[in-house]
Amino acid sequence: MGMVGGGRGAFIGAVHRMAANLDGKIELVAGAFSADPKKSKLSGQDFHLDPNRVYASYEEMAKAEAALPADERIDFVSIVVRNNMHYAVAKCFLEHGFNVICDKPMTFTLKEGKQLKKIVEKSGKVFALTHNYTGYPMVKEARDMVQKGKLGRILKIVTEYPQGYAVGDITAKASGAIDSWRADPAVAGISNCIGDIGTHAENLGRYITGLEIEELCAELTAFIPGRELDDDGNVLIRYKGGAKGILYASQISGGDENNLNIRIYGEKASLEWHQEHPNELIVKYADKPRQIYRRGNDYLCKAAQENTRTPFGHPEAFIEAFANVYLAAAKAIAAEVEGKKMPKNLDFPNVDDGLEGMAFIESVVKSSKAKAKWTKFIKA
Amino acid sequence: MGMVGGGRGAFIGAVHRMAANLDGKIELVAGAFSADPKKSKLSGQDFHLDPNRVYASYEEMAKAEAALPADERIDFVSIVVRNNMHYAVAKCFLEHGFNVICDKPMTFTLKEGKQLKKIVEKSGKVFALTHNYTGYPMVKEARDMVQKGKLGRILKIVTEYPQGYAVGDITAKASGAIDSWRADPAVAGISNCIGDIGTHAENLGRYITGLEIEELCAELTAFIPGRELDDDGNVLIRYKGGAKGILYASQISGGDENNLNIRIYGEKASLEWHQEHPNELIVKYADKPRQIYRRGNDYLCKAAQENTRTPFGHPEAFIEAFANVYLAAAKAIAAEVEGKKMPKNLDFPNVDDGLEGMAFIESVVKSSKAKAKWTKFIKA
Amino acid sequence: MGMVGGGRGAFIGAVHRMAANLDGKIELVAGAFSADPKKSKLSGQDFHLDPNRVYASYEEMAKAEAALPADERIDFVSIVVRNNMHYAVAKCFLEHGFNVICDKPMTFTLKEGKQLKKIVEKSGKVFALTHNYTGYPMVKEARDMVQKGKLGRILKIVTEYPQGYAVGDITAKASGAIDSWRADPAVAGISNCIGDIGTHAENLGRYITGLEIEELCAELTAFIPGRELDDDGNVLIRYKGGAKGILYASQISGGDENNLNIRIYGEKASLEWHQEHPNELIVKYADKPRQIYRRGNDYLCKAAQENTRTPFGHPEAFIEAFANVYLAAAKAIAAEVEGKKMPKNLDFPNVDDGLEGMAFIESVVKSSKAKAKWTKFIKA
Amino acid sequence: MGMVGGGRGAFIGAVHRMAANLDGKIELVAGAFSADPKKSKLSGQDFHLDPNRVYASYEEMAKAEAALPADERIDFVSIVVRNNMHYAVAKCFLEHGFNVICDKPMTFTLKEGKQLKKIVEKSGKVFALTHNYTGYPMVKEARDMVQKGKLGRILKIVTEYPQGYAVGDITAKASGAIDSWRADPAVAGISNCIGDIGTHAENLGRYITGLEIEELCAELTAFIPGRELDDDGNVLIRYKGGAKGILYASQISGGDENNLNIRIYGEKASLEWHQEHPNELIVKYADKPRQIYRRGNDYLCKAAQENTRTPFGHPEAFIEAFANVYLAAAKAIAAEVEGKKMPKNLDFPNVDDGLEGMAFIESVVKSSKAKAKWTKFIKA
Repeated sequence: MGMVGGGRGAFIGAVHRMAANLDGKIELVAGAFSADPKKSKLSGQDFHLDPNRVYASYEEMAKAEAALPADERIDFVSIVVRNNMHYAVAKCFLEHGFNVICDKPMTFTLKEGKQLKKIVEKSGKVFALTHNYTGYPMVKEARDMVQKGKLGRILKIVTEYPQGYAVGDITAKASGAIDSWRADPAVAGISNCIGDIGTHAENLGRYITGLEIEELCAELTAFIPGRELDDDGNVLIRYKGGAKGILYASQISGGDENNLNIRIYGEKASLEWHQEHPNELIVKYADKPRQIYRRGNDYLCKAAQENTRTPFGHPEAFIEAFANVYLAAAKAIAAEVEGKKMPKNLDFPNVDDGLEGMAFIESVVKSSKAKAKWTKFIKA
Repeated sequence: MGMVGGGRGAFIGAVHRMAANLDGKIELVAGAFSADPKKSKLSGQDFHLDPNRVYASYEEMAKAEAALPADERIDFVSIVVRNNMHYAVAKCFLEHGFNVICDKPMTFTLKEGKQLKKIVEKSGKVFALTHNYTGYPMVKEARDMVQKGKLGRILKIVTEYPQGYAVGDITAKASGAIDSWRADPAVAGISNCIGDIGTHAENLGRYITGLEIEELCAELTAFIPGRELDDDGNVLIRYKGGAKGILYASQISGGDENNLNIRIYGEKASLEWHQEHPNELIVKYADKPRQIYRRGNDYLCKAAQENTRTPFGHPEAFIEAFANVYLAAAKAIAAEVEGKKMPKNLDFPNVDDGLEGMAFIESVVKSSKAKAKWTKFIKA
Repeated sequence: MGMVGGGRGAFIGAVHRMAANLDGKIELVAGAFSADPKKSKLSGQDFHLDPNRVYASYEEMAKAEAALPADERIDFVSIVVRNNMHYAVAKCFLEHGFNVICDKPMTFTLKEGKQLKKIVEKSGKVFALTHNYTGYPMVKEARDMVQKGKLGRILKIVTEYPQGYAVGDITAKASGAIDSWRADPAVAGISNCIGDIGTHAENLGRYITGLEIEELCAELTAFIPGRELDDDGNVLIRYKGGAKGILYASQISGGDENNLNIRIYGEKASLEWHQEHPNELIVKYADKPRQIYRRGNDYLCKAAQENTRTPFGHPEAFIEAFANVYLAAAKAIAAEVEGKKMPKNLDFPNVDDGLEGMAFIESVVKSSKAKAKWTKFIKA
Repeated sequence: MGMVGGGRGAFIGAVHRMAANLDGKIELVAGAFSADPKKSKLSGQDFHLDPNRVYASYEEMAKAEAALPADERIDFVSIVVRNNMHYAVAKCFLEHGFNVICDKPMTFTLKEGKQLKKIVEKSGKVFALTHNYTGYPMVKEARDMVQKGKLGRILKIVTEYPQGYAVGDITAKASGAIDSWRADPAVAGISNCIGDIGTHAENLGRYITGLEIEELCAELTAFIPGRELDDDGNVLIRYKGGAKGILYASQISGGDENNLNIRIYGEKASLEWHQEHPNELIVKYADKPRQIYRRGNDYLCKAAQENTRTPFGHPEAFIEAFANVYLAAAKAIAAEVEGKKMPKNLDFPNVDDGLEGMAFIESVVKSSKAKAKWTKFIKA
């Protein structure tokens, strides 16, 4: 694979590389790791790459790689640049004939998202989006339970995503965080918190339940002084079919780390999953003992078993889930590259999921600006 | 003490009696346990009462007890009838010169609540409301931390109160629950779920933080077919001073039992407390290890220590918390009866808390009817 | 009831009184609360007793109460004095025709225990021992599961009872704890830690499984300087029938509070129960999801349901469990007093349990003195 | 790297490869994956290796690799064969000039272990043993706390390692497990359960506390019919300096998965760590609130921070800990290969740890055979 972005010091680029490395089936061979050509070169050295394949810009990389013989060039590019660049980079590589794995949110605007979808469809290439939390085996088990009707009709979904890493910026005199690109509308888009983590929460609920949002009623808040974009957002949701929901995301919930969790209440049973304890799925009944489903056991569904690497009790976590997204995408990419028929039931987030996420961001911002008025979900 | 309501088979009456019994300082000596005089008599036998002091109606009881010599008659009455009767019974006993401990919600309507407040003030008697969850020692610790500024400015409050006991009624062919008095507007008032448990959630947050609600934006749902009143309610909140909140209460969250919990996020620290694990208070920091404060330890505040009966590790729970409300109210009642000066810093929910609860119910219902429009909190 | 011991400042006496009070069926009417007659009188005032029935000594009390008319005198005495007095007080009251509820360990020595058993049998009176942990509903559920064969043959039992309250005495210059009567062989007997809490652990395992100890291999340690008696004890166990066990008790496990817990592993299923989270029973299977049984649910066995006072999710704890022992004993006592047939299936610890506990203490001390040699369990 | 063992279907080989892959710094280039040359070849294909470097036997591999130019041949070999082969394979590669990473237990017998130590020393090569649990960052934090004196003198250590995977073999009519090589003394050595997982438990305690075992008193049990070797073992321990310990390991604790956990009690503070929730370290005090130290935070020690790949709340688990052992060993190997000075403070288990493990196995078996007699720890 090749990589755009993710040079020295970048967090998510490193995660993408570990996820790609884990199973020994994907090899990083080229990259444009930084807008700064020098930094890109140094990063390439860190990764022991052939210097000829460490590029000064993504455009140069796309062109050069495309010019290589088919069996030498990269099979796909992993895009880990800032939000406002996702579209341009993805477009460039797709149009040069490459498959793409892209970080989220998919694009800078919903409009860009729609354009990207057209480009993906036209290209016939694989486009995967790293909504990594859906890679967890117990999330797949949850989805399987819903699909098999074990919960009955779903009544309520509560999705929480509190983080606290930015709370210090509220009182900091000279806040480094204000300068964070995530807080800069010109780079991050119209939302910070909802864009960055709210979309994960939305994607998680939709992945498990398949329910679509009909209307929502949201309030975004910028607690950090000087901020234009939200660092906290609370959303009431009406799903198609009558289920109700609460979804919130926050970066100022001091002391919480990455506490994404979801509770899904059905007529027959309810589910609860916590990202920080990902190996367990709690199944609750009104008239029976609770059940704790645990990763690695034979009683789990096929998808949960196939997305597991270690036996029960040998916990798996964030990187393994991320790697599951990579592995699933890689299977599709391998089929594409080898000109084979696309495997059925491929399970990785794609351009449609990205589009839903962009629509979610725009709907939430619209509702919040209208003072939490119930707002129809914007067509993705 | 005397009791109105709480005859055979009634849940909350039994809890009130156990709470009153626990410390051996309060004795049940009289009662009108049911609107059915026969049932009242039988209940009196269950409690080994003097048959002369088991009454056929609360009016008869108030009159008869008031006619007894001062050292024989009850010191206070405990009111555990249905919501729509709270006001009349409380009024009757207050006007006959008795102190009152009353279950929540305080009255049938906010208007009644305001009248009751006037009656209480005029009577000079003690009026306590059993928002029992504030009786837990670790809730008192939480309040103390907020008051001492350990959290700094409060940014966000998340209060959840999911129960699942009613979920079976959604699909039940012949639903007994539809006939439940809690679902009957003529008995329960304008709300079921928010009135019954949402008020506990509201009271808990206000007790700990002292923050007042400025505006709220709510959606109530009746999932159970044939129901007029809500069995699920989700509320976004704006507190005075800028904090934001989410509060929800539900009776159709299948498999949850009585899962009241609250998270309070401040600039300096955050708190988390779960009613089903009441002996722990979780304190979270952005830059320090989490701390688990545990009931019964010397490092806790005075109020937490004084409202405890057993050493650390010998868990206390629901009845003990309930008994703390009774004990605190009993101290005030003893002072009133003995004509002594009222002790300072009495810590039990009173008529003002009841009024706030009624205002909360009316505000939530109003907002929900207006389709989750931000609604100013109705003046209590 | 009457009480011997448990005057001002005594911990366990207060717990016994709360347990007795809780259900409003037992009334404290007499007592000899302290060997110091003055302190006894003052304690009697605290409890609002008739001064004529507050006695200067237990002998005086037994004699005076026995002289009262049958419908006035106490039905039973609750004995909460120090270990070395249990036997004499119990003997005295039994021989004066009273039923007895006694704290544990039952006697000062096994020999005394055997004598007490004879006295109990001869008297025909009820003798209950407050191994209170068996009063928890989920412990009764555990026992029921074992009895119904849900675990299959039991293979292994791990019982832990770490407390940490005494750890400070290890380094304290002037240790108050060294003076503790529990550490004084003349008062506590041949063991401190095993006698005080190890017997609870032993009783808990035997109550649930019914398994008898065949041999044990123990090491006792006195970590606190100047101590003659153990503050920590570790025991390997061989049960009759082939199961193996580990049991330990400790008072120097700093930071642990009252962390009694037990894990029982069977061929078909395993159980886990933690006293500090008493409302849950964890049931584990090798090939199925774990199940969490929770107090207050209809799916529990009859005994678990009958020993519960509040609905699910409204947690019960230490005092309620203690009160279950009192209630069960009170039923037997009521039958005895009224000359009725003793109810079947009475479920409270009795003189045989007390005897087993004394045999356990002596066996453990013997093995430890023999340098952890496997030691046959001493016949109780 | 090269690998011996770990062909198709082998669990631990796959883990070693993922651990090696994770950081993109170690590449598998050669192997003798099975004693069956055909299976070895097929496994090599699975891993996309050059067929010329997939060997039919480890001897062939050692010879052939040694004959390659220095910059082409493997830097080290990873040995994941059965216990009885560890010594021979390690010896062969060390003597051919290769560094070694070896699975545990280190050798078949203590005697072999002592010989291996001599060979390692003579070779000057790096020898690492994959006691992977010491790779967890929070285990390193625990060790740091002990070393900095935060616990004071250590009083007691409780180490538990219950697994339940073999419980089904107790009642299985045709037990596949009886045929397991782990149960075969000719392959596994003198112990199954203590050798396989008891050594991990022993290593974990020694790694954190540095305490050495002085004497132990053990009982091993073979619950599975037809088994010669233990599937359950309980050990009482006396550490040098006066601390006491309990250590147990089990494979028949049905429903437990890989529930390694350790509690270390000191005069000043106590620690608790659970392998199945590895991102947390619980620190307990007798007079202060408990603290929960969480992976990924700045307040942790250097070693805990350096052995971490993702930010707090993005959990890490088994493979990452395993990879930490590989990374640390790889640094030493890189220094050796490049002829540089060995870095200081290398933190990975080595031949001495392996030797201690073998001595532990032999001591436990000796004590158990002597009917749990206190047995001096055999000199490693």
